[in-house]
Amino acid sequence: MLTGHFKDVKEEAPPLPGAQSTIRWLIAGKDGAKNFAMRVIEIKHKAEKIPLHKHDYEHETFVIAGKGKVFTRDIEQNVGVGDFAFIAPGEEHGFENLGDEPFRFICVIPIAK
Amino acid sequence: MLTGHFKDVKEEAPPLPGAQSTIRWLIAGKDGAKNFAMRVIEIKHKAEKIPLHKHDYEHETFVIAGKGKVFTRDIEQNVGVGDFAFIAPGEEHGFENLGDEPFRFICVIPIAK
Repeated sequence: MLTGHFKDVKEEAPPLPGAQSTIRWLIAGKDGAKNFAMRVIEIKHKAEKIPLHKHDYEHETFVIAGKGKVFTRDIEQNVGVGDFAFIAPGEEHGFENLGDEPFRFICVIPIAK
Repeated sequence: MLTGHFKDVKEEAPPLPGAQSTIRWLIAGKDGAKNFAMRVIEIKHKAEKIPLHKHDYEHETFVIAGKGKVFTRDIEQNVGVGDFAFIAPGEEHGFENLGDEPFRFICVIPIAK
């Protein structure tokens, strides 16, 4: 068993160019996870964004702090603590902080095999 | 994109006999998820437990409310909001509520293929 607090996990620059966010890899391949990885994504300030982008894998997300927006080309959905979102593989999507506090969400992705 | 609030998801009886808990399936196969499912597990009252058990798949968990304990045969780890735990496939484990509020955590599992 591996346990820890997310704030003790190293906060890294985003993997996506242009994203105004940070990422913490809580549970990943390095920890023995073979199927999926759990990360915490954070957008610190109001109006900062992760721009529209897509990839061939899904996201399963859950908001743990702050207020924000998940958006696709067609839909904008305001979200807060306790809200979840499923973004399908290939679906274009982005995130924005709409509040005065950091907007923070868990984001689970598959591990490539 | 599918979004929602976890409290709007039907709270169901636990799949494990003897578990003093409930489960909400936030994102699962019915939603188009092919690789992993996101659930919220809740143990409502102090000293209620999910007893020691094991299965051939992993858990990736993240505490979103309350205080509790994750335990194996050998280790007990107190956890609170913001703590995560990785339980490997085949690792015996259980959970207990240690606080006066519901102990609630996200629990991601692979979807069988």
